[in-house]
Amino acid sequence: MTNLKLSEDTFNLKKINKYATLMTLGNGYIGLRGTHEENYFNQKRGFYVAGIYNYSEAGEPEEIVNLPDVVGHEIEIDGQVFSSLTGKKLSYDRTLHMDRGEVITRYLWEREDGLRLQFAFHRLVAKHDLHVIASKVMITSMNRDVTVKLRTGIDAQQTNHGRQHVKEKHVQVHEEKYLQGTYETTNSGQTITLFSACAYSHDCPVNFFAKNRQLLSESVISLGEDESFQLEKFTTVETSNDGDVSGSRDIGLEKVKHLTAQGYDEILKQSARAWKQFWDANRIEIHSPNPMDQKAIDFAQYHLEIMTPKHSNNISIGAKGLTGEGYKGHVFWDSEIFMLPYHLYNDPEVARQLLEYRYQRMPEAKNLATEHGYHGAQFPWESARTGKEETPKYAAINIRTGERQKVASALAEHHIVADIAFAVLHYYRGTGDEDFMKEKGLEMLVETSKFWLSRAEEVDGRLQLLGVIGPDEYTEFIDNNAYTNYMVHYTVQETLDLLRGVDSENQQQIKEMENFLDRLYLPEVNADNLIPQDDTFLNKPIIDLAPYKQQQGSQSILLDYSRTEVNEMQILKQADVVMLLFLLPDLFSRDVVEANYRYYEARTIHDSSLSKAIHAILAMRCGHKTTAYQFFQEACLIDLGPNPHSSDDGIHAASLGSIWLALFNFLNLNFTGERFKIDPVLPDTWTYFKFPFSYRGRRIVVEVSDQNLKLSNVYGKPIGVEVGGNSYQLTDYIEIPLPQIVT
Amino acid sequence: MTNLKLSEDTFNLKKINKYATLMTLGNGYIGLRGTHEENYFNQKRGFYVAGIYNYSEAGEPEEIVNLPDVVGHEIEIDGQVFSSLTGKKLSYDRTLHMDRGEVITRYLWEREDGLRLQFAFHRLVAKHDLHVIASKVMITSMNRDVTVKLRTGIDAQQTNHGRQHVKEKHVQVHEEKYLQGTYETTNSGQTITLFSACAYSHDCPVNFFAKNRQLLSESVISLGEDESFQLEKFTTVETSNDGDVSGSRDIGLEKVKHLTAQGYDEILKQSARAWKQFWDANRIEIHSPNPMDQKAIDFAQYHLEIMTPKHSNNISIGAKGLTGEGYKGHVFWDSEIFMLPYHLYNDPEVARQLLEYRYQRMPEAKNLATEHGYHGAQFPWESARTGKEETPKYAAINIRTGERQKVASALAEHHIVADIAFAVLHYYRGTGDEDFMKEKGLEMLVETSKFWLSRAEEVDGRLQLLGVIGPDEYTEFIDNNAYTNYMVHYTVQETLDLLRGVDSENQQQIKEMENFLDRLYLPEVNADNLIPQDDTFLNKPIIDLAPYKQQQGSQSILLDYSRTEVNEMQILKQADVVMLLFLLPDLFSRDVVEANYRYYEARTIHDSSLSKAIHAILAMRCGHKTTAYQFFQEACLIDLGPNPHSSDDGIHAASLGSIWLALFNFLNLNFTGERFKIDPVLPDTWTYFKFPFSYRGRRIVVEVSDQNLKLSNVYGKPIGVEVGGNSYQLTDYIEIPLPQIVT
Repeated sequence: MTNLKLSEDTFNLKKINKYATLMTLGNGYIGLRGTHEENYFNQKRGFYVAGIYNYSEAGEPEEIVNLPDVVGHEIEIDGQVFSSLTGKKLSYDRTLHMDRGEVITRYLWEREDGLRLQFAFHRLVAKHDLHVIASKVMITSMNRDVTVKLRTGIDAQQTNHGRQHVKEKHVQVHEEKYLQGTYETTNSGQTITLFSACAYSHDCPVNFFAKNRQLLSESVISLGEDESFQLEKFTTVETSNDGDVSGSRDIGLEKVKHLTAQGYDEILKQSARAWKQFWDANRIEIHSPNPMDQKAIDFAQYHLEIMTPKHSNNISIGAKGLTGEGYKGHVFWDSEIFMLPYHLYNDPEVARQLLEYRYQRMPEAKNLATEHGYHGAQFPWESARTGKEETPKYAAINIRTGERQKVASALAEHHIVADIAFAVLHYYRGTGDEDFMKEKGLEMLVETSKFWLSRAEEVDGRLQLLGVIGPDEYTEFIDNNAYTNYMVHYTVQETLDLLRGVDSENQQQIKEMENFLDRLYLPEVNADNLIPQDDTFLNKPIIDLAPYKQQQGSQSILLDYSRTEVNEMQILKQADVVMLLFLLPDLFSRDVVEANYRYYEARTIHDSSLSKAIHAILAMRCGHKTTAYQFFQEACLIDLGPNPHSSDDGIHAASLGSIWLALFNFLNLNFTGERFKIDPVLPDTWTYFKFPFSYRGRRIVVEVSDQNLKLSNVYGKPIGVEVGGNSYQLTDYIEIPLPQIVT
Repeated sequence: MTNLKLSEDTFNLKKINKYATLMTLGNGYIGLRGTHEENYFNQKRGFYVAGIYNYSEAGEPEEIVNLPDVVGHEIEIDGQVFSSLTGKKLSYDRTLHMDRGEVITRYLWEREDGLRLQFAFHRLVAKHDLHVIASKVMITSMNRDVTVKLRTGIDAQQTNHGRQHVKEKHVQVHEEKYLQGTYETTNSGQTITLFSACAYSHDCPVNFFAKNRQLLSESVISLGEDESFQLEKFTTVETSNDGDVSGSRDIGLEKVKHLTAQGYDEILKQSARAWKQFWDANRIEIHSPNPMDQKAIDFAQYHLEIMTPKHSNNISIGAKGLTGEGYKGHVFWDSEIFMLPYHLYNDPEVARQLLEYRYQRMPEAKNLATEHGYHGAQFPWESARTGKEETPKYAAINIRTGERQKVASALAEHHIVADIAFAVLHYYRGTGDEDFMKEKGLEMLVETSKFWLSRAEEVDGRLQLLGVIGPDEYTEFIDNNAYTNYMVHYTVQETLDLLRGVDSENQQQIKEMENFLDRLYLPEVNADNLIPQDDTFLNKPIIDLAPYKQQQGSQSILLDYSRTEVNEMQILKQADVVMLLFLLPDLFSRDVVEANYRYYEARTIHDSSLSKAIHAILAMRCGHKTTAYQFFQEACLIDLGPNPHSSDDGIHAASLGSIWLALFNFLNLNFTGERFKIDPVLPDTWTYFKFPFSYRGRRIVVEVSDQNLKLSNVYGKPIGVEVGGNSYQLTDYIEIPLPQIVT
């Protein structure tokens, strides 16, 4: 099993923003990109607090705010501006220690005249205290007397690619040591207060500067040969989202003083302890000849952990987590369909919070439905702080015409309304949380059902869902998208069943839903066993997709064809019918699943990072273990692969969720109330697989080895388990020899 | 005589912004900082168009807008991000060719593996066409096959130190070649349209990208050993200030096409021709053993030329010209007192335009007076687009208390009202422009006089000007500042004389002014021949200023004393009484001038760049030639000296004007109507001095050599000249042997 490390052993300017993303530190409250302490001209710094959104110009959507930087150091060596690009790096290593949430960069640098300096930069975002960032810079002169000047502090010159979201409200140096910077977002009116302080290993003169939106401290140190200098820096962040901030000045000041008294190593110790608890309880283990399998799931779990705002039920997870500004920090269906299951089966409270985030935005969802002439609640395609539709009205500019292309998603990608309902049902089935259903869940189900009832139109005597976009965004404004119609049918049917269960006063509502379900058109399996993706898809021309599949993820098809042209061919960006088959595995026979998986995969470029792992799951279900493993491995490379710019704007949060989904689905778990079936199908080369999950108050650990399947019930009541047709009662643990379970 | 070049022969990151400022290109419409084409992490790009101002947050003053960048190139070599900091620079030269307004950077770069590339970057801002920027990048592979990728275009991620002033309105690529970026300032509603196109020496694939406020073209070129590649780039800029912009798209597109057809060298030829005409007509020559004398005046003339918006009478000159964002591009008394004389004696039309800029803002000046309870017109201490008071309400933060310190200048530095009146009179005396006086000048004089009449308060039976700040900003809120009171008396007296001359209907006004002048308190020369700088100054304690004079220009006194403490000591930032004696040389006897010059200089730190050259003039007038020359030389180093950060935020425009003022005053010219006296007093080491100036329709060239004084009348009617007590009629030229004129 590989260690919990992600390393870069060669400094490469081209990958500087990829690694800044991959090596993001965080705790669900803070996301701090893994940029270098030193400045490089193409390096994109990023410091985000979950839930802090703003728009800079009227008409723009809100976006996650890139806060003033606290990571950067300007360094001078012997009076000259330092850049590590000059001279030589005689050694270099940069490692994200996922085991303890720390990034360490070390290099030995030689100046042209032979001076050698050893640099070591340590940094953490505390896991045990959401508001804390700490870092440590160590510089050792190996062979000369040298003078070092370090300038660091709070730098509010940062922008979101040129968009400025905060104004400086107050900057101050307290007690000639503690820097305070208080900022306010320009339109959303949120307040962010930062405190920063440095502690030095040597007595040294320190000056402070406040100019041009920077509040900096500058220290000068003379080092003899073989002498080391160390600067520790402590930062706290509080925002008006945290509650009453009238006292935040005192809180922050006291906190930063306390941190300074503790010192970096003590803070690291406490944070590392919290990380150890996390890994001890949650780490998935894969013994595979391909070390990337373990690394990818470690990386996924690390990022799923740091992206999730467990501290609040009023914030959800952006498509890039808190690692970059891609998709402006907006929340998509990714949260409910790709990330929520991870939490549901590990920490169901978090899954509930993600749903509560939506619930609290029901009024806006109802407004959106009303605006569009519908009933019920229409959740927006992109959501942020307010719950208003935040999808940019216009996306990429057509640079030939200068016309901004309208974003179709907000207008038609309505499946998100069913996806959220699906997640409510998923949560309820997984937890049996009646309180949530009574207080919130059922209301969400009913309101989203109402939306669909009003959304359907009668055509040829059937209710149809016209002019939608399914998950496959290369096919826009089509009628009766199979994914959408079936998901709608499923969620409304389930809602109806639940409604009937409660003593519903509204028989009218029930009747309308029954009528809707009776009459909703569901695309039927045709003579070739195919489910038509929509009314016209199967009649569209087919082209050879091989060249585009070669460059999957790059949307290279759009260089050769316009969106309108792509729309008129059998080209899929990502899983659509396949997605449906994944989510609702019991709808169709295995033959149908197999036929559709084959047919649609052949026509899928996988330009979306949401596609690969879902195909891995379907391939595994169809018994194509090799293909499944290949899809899985390809999914693992979406962020971690060789593409130097794959993740410049942030990690692919849903893709990381889907890597976990793949492994989870490889177990073929099937839950029914207080019991479950398990039937693991794993890549042949894996010799050991350990997978913990939670279910209705139990913590179960599955271990699959060459010899046997071991199930442990770490805590919680006994539970019934079915394996290979046999039933067991899992109290502490059971071991079942393997041949029994081979399917 | 040194050539018209300013060179940097060593690449130094520490001076990168100093040289970016010094090597600014421009034409009074455009100011383009002399940044490198390549990006460096600490390099501050700047592209300004005169008159384009905006504020980004309510309550902030407007500032000159840093426009989208068109200079930068991202370069990749063999697939790796290029930075010249890596590898070695085997040679390096960067030169501003002031003779033709071109910056050329050349260096031979060696990669670690031995690949050698010769880079040459040429750039110009056209002098013959205000809207044009052109550049040329040449890359030669000296010893290997190599692939080069260049990415350049229009980059709207630029900010003013984090403040974003423009929104993207329209970006487009026309005909797969011509980039268009149209931007609008966020609050002042000005539109800026940029067109950019590249032409390549080789056929090469070109792609275009529009994302995150950048519109870029990317070209890829494979070079063999000893092969060169050349990219030429042409940019045009038009703004809504230029008049109707509804057609600017077509104008800009046509223009950039035309430029592309012309090519860099042809554009350079035309621009260089315009520069040659400028230098031929205007260059001052100094033969001195100290080459800096010539360089400094060349540099001053170059920058005075590029900073001046000769195309418009609705824009004035910012304190940093168009070279940086210091003082936010605001207009101070610098324009009228330090820069206007240069234009008055070279191109009086420009001097008139600078006054018209003020005249057009009379309504705002009247509003400002009314707001403060005064009559007439009160010009603001800092002025920009609207003529409103643009002085930031709060300046530097007191970083200990977090309190922003109120800027006192706007509240009390009222002498600017007299300074503008002085400039009107100066212009009128220098040109006899009766039309201007009738239409605008007299009104300005009357309204500023009214301001002073209402501003004065009766104390002890005299009218006093209380609570003012004179030019010396280290003495705030004092009563009866000598500079202010005498300047006010002078300008009101002159206004009265002019009013009497015209058939004024307003005898009441005349009477009030007579009464004011009779009763205005004028600080009297005391027993020590001193003019008290204000009512209390001479009674304040004195401290040893030697250590602060050592660090003059740095305001280091404020590190040891608070402003309040400095206020209570005999400490001057800059010339104050000395400034008065400079501007009104006939008020006092030479003994008084001498006594005051000595007394106040001893108490002056020269922390303002406006101080040194004025002291040089006074020293020369007092016969201290050596000291005068020393002050002059020190003034020459304000921008050009060794301080690596002297000019990061822009050149010191007034200081450059004052270098010219010093030379002008060394001639001891005295104009009376259609004749003048001249009595040059020059540094002993100068063997030749050539100084052209204009006066009432004539172009006069003064040449002083070891042997004689030669005066040429280049064009215009004959004029009477008095030299050494003798009168001459200057028709074409006269030569007068030198001994005669030694004073």
